[in-house]
Amino acid sequence: MSIHYRQWLLVNRPHGWVQESNFKLVEAELPALQDGQLVVKVHYLSLDPYMRGRMNESKSYAPPQPLNQVMIGGTVGEIVESKNVNFKAGEMVVGMGGWQEYFVSDGVGLMKVDTHALPPTVYLGCMGMPGVTAWYGLIQICKPKAGNTLVVSAASGAVGSVVGQLATIRGCKVVGIAGGQPKCSSVVKEFGFDHCVDYKSERFLDDFAKATPNGVDMVFENVGGALLDAALARMNDFGRVAICGLIAGYNGQEMSLKNFASLLTHRLKVRGFIVSEHMEIWGQALK
Amino acid sequence: MSIHYRQWLLVNRPHGWVQESNFKLVEAELPALQDGQLVVKVHYLSLDPYMRGRMNESKSYAPPQPLNQVMIGGTVGEIVESKNVNFKAGEMVVGMGGWQEYFVSDGVGLMKVDTHALPPTVYLGCMGMPGVTAWYGLIQICKPKAGNTLVVSAASGAVGSVVGQLATIRGCKVVGIAGGQPKCSSVVKEFGFDHCVDYKSERFLDDFAKATPNGVDMVFENVGGALLDAALARMNDFGRVAICGLIAGYNGQEMSLKNFASLLTHRLKVRGFIVSEHMEIWGQALK
Repeated sequence: MSIHYRQWLLVNRPHGWVQESNFKLVEAELPALQDGQLVVKVHYLSLDPYMRGRMNESKSYAPPQPLNQVMIGGTVGEIVESKNVNFKAGEMVVGMGGWQEYFVSDGVGLMKVDTHALPPTVYLGCMGMPGVTAWYGLIQICKPKAGNTLVVSAASGAVGSVVGQLATIRGCKVVGIAGGQPKCSSVVKEFGFDHCVDYKSERFLDDFAKATPNGVDMVFENVGGALLDAALARMNDFGRVAICGLIAGYNGQEMSLKNFASLLTHRLKVRGFIVSEHMEIWGQALK
Repeated sequence: MSIHYRQWLLVNRPHGWVQESNFKLVEAELPALQDGQLVVKVHYLSLDPYMRGRMNESKSYAPPQPLNQVMIGGTVGEIVESKNVNFKAGEMVVGMGGWQEYFVSDGVGLMKVDTHALPPTVYLGCMGMPGVTAWYGLIQICKPKAGNTLVVSAASGAVGSVVGQLATIRGCKVVGIAGGQPKCSSVVKEFGFDHCVDYKSERFLDDFAKATPNGVDMVFENVGGALLDAALARMNDFGRVAICGLIAGYNGQEMSLKNFASLLTHRLKVRGFIVSEHMEIWGQALK
């Protein structure tokens, strides 16, 4: 069986916003499998904010995406052929397959998932990397207590929406930040946040102050910049800030914080984290 | 015995830099002592950066200094009269006597000190609040390991100079930041830092990079602003930053950080602290 399939390669590095011209669509052909190998047909690819960082050449927490290779990405797919004793054709697996229709693997890093009980995409969402990210930052860094006020930026996103739900069931008051009324509305109605404030509104700072009358005890930060600054201005003593993402700076923008001194005046703990370094907590988190 | 003495009162709040006109020098007369009271003649007054914050009316970690009252300050002095069974005339005490030549106290918050074995001023320095501050931030927040590189801003100050010495004896490589060659020179020669970089030099960033060839594992931050930004640019993974002071913003300046994203890319822990909230560690620290 000769299978031809498509791959997206990163061929040059974006400066500022990502352009289609940074990528090239090419055709590849699957090789004959060697012992221990298997082939996955990709059903779903997850597009995540961390990808922007990988496209840069600069020093970061992970090596840069190499040029002229398949762009990295989390996938759910079906095993269509296997010469690996641990995997059988027909099984569904989640893994880092990248931006391509098929991939060959030796099985390392692949996890079998049950796509009958749950839809396959949840393994790229609340039951996957975003869900574990939400759990780690909230539980291990923010350390929520009932009655605390939590602020979550990018509240309608794959991570933010889970953070809010995890905090709500722990008795916290949860205030989301999102862009535009439709997103804010779904954050409250679908994900059960107490409030969601539109950062694109001219009244953002006023609305945010009204939504946090008792100040802010915890921040789960996905964005940074003006959104983080607004939260820092409202912090209570001994607040905790989990830095999960800083999208506001991903395209190279500087980050000016008027309220950085809040770290000192309110004795905050601020910690950046990358969930892939804490794989040991996946089992605990996914429960 | 009727004693007249001088006091400095804060009579209006500075905007930006402190002016002499923010204060008023007045004369007072000691009252007759009641049972349980004592009188301290102040020998030494400590001038510390936290005082600038107290002069503001805004929300901070401590209540503002009230107007038309004696300005707060740490002191060492001698008891000249006592109707308190726990204190005798002639004993030396450290406490928060404020900007005045004498003060009446009920003894609460006063600590007897031995000024024969050590000069009285050390109780306002390495054996006092600055020393405990240095110990707490370094040991409890930075958690030094032998071989780590530590950066200390305001390295020639009462706190910074002690931080460097505590880290050196724990096997760390210690790089100070101070203003001007005379200060930098004394930081290396008197306090034993490995290097000290002059932030007033045009070559500051180059010099700083040369002084930290293995990157930075820990920062004891007294200043903030451009100095903190320089350190953030050189951080190693899992670095620790103790925010003890942010002098760069004490007169109202904004804090723009080009390298804030380092918190995420290097998974830093950043924590602000106020030593007076951790009085339980004084005994352990002063050993």
